[in-house]
Amino acid sequence: MTHLPERLLAGYKHFMSGRFLSETQKYRDLARDGQAPETLVIACCDSRSAPEIIFGAGAGELFVLRNVANLIPPYAPDGEFHSTSAALEFAVQALKVKNIVVMGHGRCGGIKAALDHKSPPLSPGDFIGKWMSLLAPSADAVAGNSLMTPGERQTALERISIRYSIANLRTFPCVKILEEKGKLKLFGAWFDISTGELWVMDSQTGDFVRPDLN
Amino acid sequence: MTHLPERLLAGYKHFMSGRFLSETQKYRDLARDGQAPETLVIACCDSRSAPEIIFGAGAGELFVLRNVANLIPPYAPDGEFHSTSAALEFAVQALKVKNIVVMGHGRCGGIKAALDHKSPPLSPGDFIGKWMSLLAPSADAVAGNSLMTPGERQTALERISIRYSIANLRTFPCVKILEEKGKLKLFGAWFDISTGELWVMDSQTGDFVRPDLN
Amino acid sequence: MTHLPERLLAGYKHFMSGRFLSETQKYRDLARDGQAPETLVIACCDSRSAPEIIFGAGAGELFVLRNVANLIPPYAPDGEFHSTSAALEFAVQALKVKNIVVMGHGRCGGIKAALDHKSPPLSPGDFIGKWMSLLAPSADAVAGNSLMTPGERQTALERISIRYSIANLRTFPCVKILEEKGKLKLFGAWFDISTGELWVMDSQTGDFVRPDLN
Amino acid sequence: MTHLPERLLAGYKHFMSGRFLSETQKYRDLARDGQAPETLVIACCDSRSAPEIIFGAGAGELFVLRNVANLIPPYAPDGEFHSTSAALEFAVQALKVKNIVVMGHGRCGGIKAALDHKSPPLSPGDFIGKWMSLLAPSADAVAGNSLMTPGERQTALERISIRYSIANLRTFPCVKILEEKGKLKLFGAWFDISTGELWVMDSQTGDFVRPDLN
Repeated sequence: MTHLPERLLAGYKHFMSGRFLSETQKYRDLARDGQAPETLVIACCDSRSAPEIIFGAGAGELFVLRNVANLIPPYAPDGEFHSTSAALEFAVQALKVKNIVVMGHGRCGGIKAALDHKSPPLSPGDFIGKWMSLLAPSADAVAGNSLMTPGERQTALERISIRYSIANLRTFPCVKILEEKGKLKLFGAWFDISTGELWVMDSQTGDFVRPDLN
Repeated sequence: MTHLPERLLAGYKHFMSGRFLSETQKYRDLARDGQAPETLVIACCDSRSAPEIIFGAGAGELFVLRNVANLIPPYAPDGEFHSTSAALEFAVQALKVKNIVVMGHGRCGGIKAALDHKSPPLSPGDFIGKWMSLLAPSADAVAGNSLMTPGERQTALERISIRYSIANLRTFPCVKILEEKGKLKLFGAWFDISTGELWVMDSQTGDFVRPDLN
Repeated sequence: MTHLPERLLAGYKHFMSGRFLSETQKYRDLARDGQAPETLVIACCDSRSAPEIIFGAGAGELFVLRNVANLIPPYAPDGEFHSTSAALEFAVQALKVKNIVVMGHGRCGGIKAALDHKSPPLSPGDFIGKWMSLLAPSADAVAGNSLMTPGERQTALERISIRYSIANLRTFPCVKILEEKGKLKLFGAWFDISTGELWVMDSQTGDFVRPDLN
Repeated sequence: MTHLPERLLAGYKHFMSGRFLSETQKYRDLARDGQAPETLVIACCDSRSAPEIIFGAGAGELFVLRNVANLIPPYAPDGEFHSTSAALEFAVQALKVKNIVVMGHGRCGGIKAALDHKSPPLSPGDFIGKWMSLLAPSADAVAGNSLMTPGERQTALERISIRYSIANLRTFPCVKILEEKGKLKLFGAWFDISTGELWVMDSQTGDFVRPDLN
């Protein structure tokens, strides 16, 4: 009896005989000493935008929160279960990361759902509908612009949502205070699946530009 | 002016000149055709347990939800924002994944927080405290067992929490129905950071065992 | 007494001893046989986006209309002076070009004026205000979107205006008929001054994409 | 699917690997700082008389208006769409150019059309007919002179039209005022496609002479 999909078992074997073998000591150290990542990445669940792959990151480097459309809801200390806020709190307060990167990507299914929000819910619970309704005001503003193509509206909302999440990050007192003290930096990035291009947010203007890689 | 931490830019350059270069067509196809991952992995944010690395997965293979301690809260169609349920709903209903893997790992900071839940909150919002309180009954039962070592209690709760999340998955009607129809399979796994060992859950007994890799 | 700015005279000397010298026969032939360009380019007057330079074009290749913001007003056979329509008519009916390319560019001063149309006119005649008012409905739709950055609004309107001009091209009976017969093709392009990137319009979707140059 | 004529794509590739590569920083600066051309050139759309090529001009040097036969209609603040006046206003009032050069050329199709104005219109809109009718009084005077050869009549009208456009430039109050203040200079030039010779207008006499290039 197999207790894991075949493809995953095969991939794990490959990991053990390759990467793990060459980094055995590093993993051992990381287990003994604990993790100390400098960066929290908030990324989408999308199967085409894994932060560790795009940023060529090794074990212990990135603390990674992934939800649909890489959203940070606004600060709400209401005693409800907030998985996103919990991960943020842990990264900032316990791990004391120095950087937070919100990374969105092209052709995001969550963003598409936000733009098509009059489609029927995916299930009676309508969890995606509710989750993406965080972007509803932005989505309505973009969806109503019939002069832009569907692709342009999608990209526009993807980038607006990154700025929205970064703005929400600053509603968390711990983020706001540490950023003001210069101990924490916030970044935005957008990954183009088709071309592999990474566009990074200019912190002054909010524009997304291609970094100089030379 | 740099718009991204230097280390990430360097890693991205490496990705572009390496992996992306050799898989350009694959990324282009994935962009054009959309993603069609067969597996949803629910993993921890921990910087040492990236599913794509442990499972040697390529672009488009794994839809990955990551929160602290890889928890699935129970089904709660209450109109609140549920990022975890949203990702689950999207994976099952929109992407129609065939497998769901809940992957925990050793030395999990979230599990440790659940066992030490009398520690002061990390911030006034106490988001981690609230989030890990999902495991409070289990954590109390384990924490009170002074016959086990701290390490054994930690591992025990890590595995209990995987079974707890799998049980909660079945509280979602769509998961329950598709599993009963044989269209969806649920798996549990636990990764030992120190040794690289992957332990997989026996679906009959709930025990974690080492898979036969030959 | 100098009858031309010094810089232009110096440039002309350079042209004569270089390019003209090596293409003397070509110019002589073009003078004797007349021009027969295959392509009409409609471009902006901007000093940074000369079509012959960007497309590496030689003498006789491109018939080039340049006005502020590369606009084509709609077909209006009203007996007024229409310099743009005149150039279009000459290219299509007399020269029988096979291609029409509307080429816009980033950081276009005309487009900026359209977005800032509440600024005072440049002169009592307000010619720019009137000319750019062709884009007023589009400009209003874009200018009102405060979720986009000024840079994003500028790029959006630059691309919308290219689609607008292409749509207006089709209001000219001669263009419409020849395009339907497959004798004339319409293209859109957008040049990024900062990076040198040329983005071309997908004729199906209207999206601007980077061409594959390999 | 190709979104641009092959020849243009090939030319653009050549530009990117040649001129743009060696002037990357210049383009970047021009994008960041904006354009500041010193000269407005009013030239013909003709494929054989691109100002940037004839004047060996680099990016950012020439603001270029191109219409059929390089005509400037007289000042007419009537609220209609005047693309030529708009470009002129932008160059003089917003960019504050120091020089305006009206450049005509030999074997101009527009001038030929003006001389043959009894030919049938190119299309029902007769846009060329209307546009070139700006020159009708001059064209009639020249066309009726049977002592000149057709070639002489053509050259004569080409040069008359340059003086006509320069005279019309002075009907624009902003041009007139700035010229009188010595802040703006007006020039005329005529390019002989066959020989590559540039003839420049003597501002005192209106004659076209060959400049001393030594």
